[in-house]
Amino acid sequence: MAVMTEHEILLIERACERLVIDFAYYSDRKDYEALGALFAEEGSMTRPTGDPLVGRAAIIQSYRSRPANRITRHVCTNNRIDVESSDGARGLTYAVVYSANAGQTPEAHFGITAEARGLGGDSECQFVRPAEGWRFATRHGRLV
Amino acid sequence: MAVMTEHEILLIERACERLVIDFAYYSDRKDYEALGALFAEEGSMTRPTGDPLVGRAAIIQSYRSRPANRITRHVCTNNRIDVESSDGARGLTYAVVYSANAGQTPEAHFGITAEARGLGGDSECQFVRPAEGWRFATRHGRLV
Amino acid sequence: MAVMTEHEILLIERACERLVIDFAYYSDRKDYEALGALFAEEGSMTRPTGDPLVGRAAIIQSYRSRPANRITRHVCTNNRIDVESSDGARGLTYAVVYSANAGQTPEAHFGITAEARGLGGDSECQFVRPAEGWRFATRHGRLV
Repeated sequence: MAVMTEHEILLIERACERLVIDFAYYSDRKDYEALGALFAEEGSMTRPTGDPLVGRAAIIQSYRSRPANRITRHVCTNNRIDVESSDGARGLTYAVVYSANAGQTPEAHFGITAEARGLGGDSECQFVRPAEGWRFATRHGRLV
Repeated sequence: MAVMTEHEILLIERACERLVIDFAYYSDRKDYEALGALFAEEGSMTRPTGDPLVGRAAIIQSYRSRPANRITRHVCTNNRIDVESSDGARGLTYAVVYSANAGQTPEAHFGITAEARGLGGDSECQFVRPAEGWRFATRHGRLV
Repeated sequence: MAVMTEHEILLIERACERLVIDFAYYSDRKDYEALGALFAEEGSMTRPTGDPLVGRAAIIQSYRSRPANRITRHVCTNNRIDVESSDGARGLTYAVVYSANAGQTPEAHFGITAEARGLGGDSECQFVRPAEGWRFATRHGRLV
């Protein structure tokens, strides 16, 4: 492959980081169309406790079946992106996912209390660059 | 507006991210003069449960009235900056704010225990670039 | 010193941030050889409750003496890097370190529960650039 400059690598790292942040953003806002569009057409997502969901439609469908009153916040840190080529990268992100039901008390909604759940884990991602720009090729979540 | 290069956009994103991190830093260190200087002269800040504070002096004054023995740590993640022009941007940041009183046991000072409080939320920010450099135009905190 | 461009400063900030993330990564994966290599040959590390460990060998040795069944996750945020020259920088990072023993229940492994420990603090770092690239010169952890 062509040698990439440090600047090109930096821009790719940022684009992939942004995908990770956008995934949390759209997931927490329940904008599942936008979430699906973060994946390549044939991209796949695997939850810690599930089988792979392959393709945007399957990913969107899976999110739409979630309880509507569930509030989540995906707190994503330690983004560690390795650029492999001008159209491929992989990444690891730590995530603490806070969730609660809308009916719980305000403190429990997001506060770190016994009633609300805080689950930790990480996500391993492959990134690709089809014509439309950087997208998730695969995203594999894991509880720790 | 003039078209910005990817490089210019990246530098603006970094400048705005740094404002977010500096806000946490100066707030947690109780350096309220420095915190005020992160805002534009007529910038405003709105806490989750309060009215807007308008102007540096009002922001500094509000922080100075806080209990002196209160220890905080603003853990800021998921910085999502959208550059709108060469002198305007907006951002969303997730924050988990840990706080405790200086009199509590060491574990409670910051540890995620029942005694200390961990509150989660986010901040929506508008950034502007007056002559002195990038500053907060508005910062609006929200509990989730 | 020679004046640095914004671009050079950005690349240095990224290199130092990556060291911080790699430290968490190798520590959590118990890859202590790789962790040691993040330090300059005579680099030092000071834990919140210990004396300075000076040199890679001492750092690696200290980690190797830890309980093998201890699971940790160093959640690092608020990376605040100040580039001082083309071969020197300093940084402050917030960290919440979750830890649990492998024998605990899955929820306790990482979840924010009474059984698992979540300790918060920060790390002050000095970075240097020997011939092999950016490395930690010193890293000083602190509980808050």
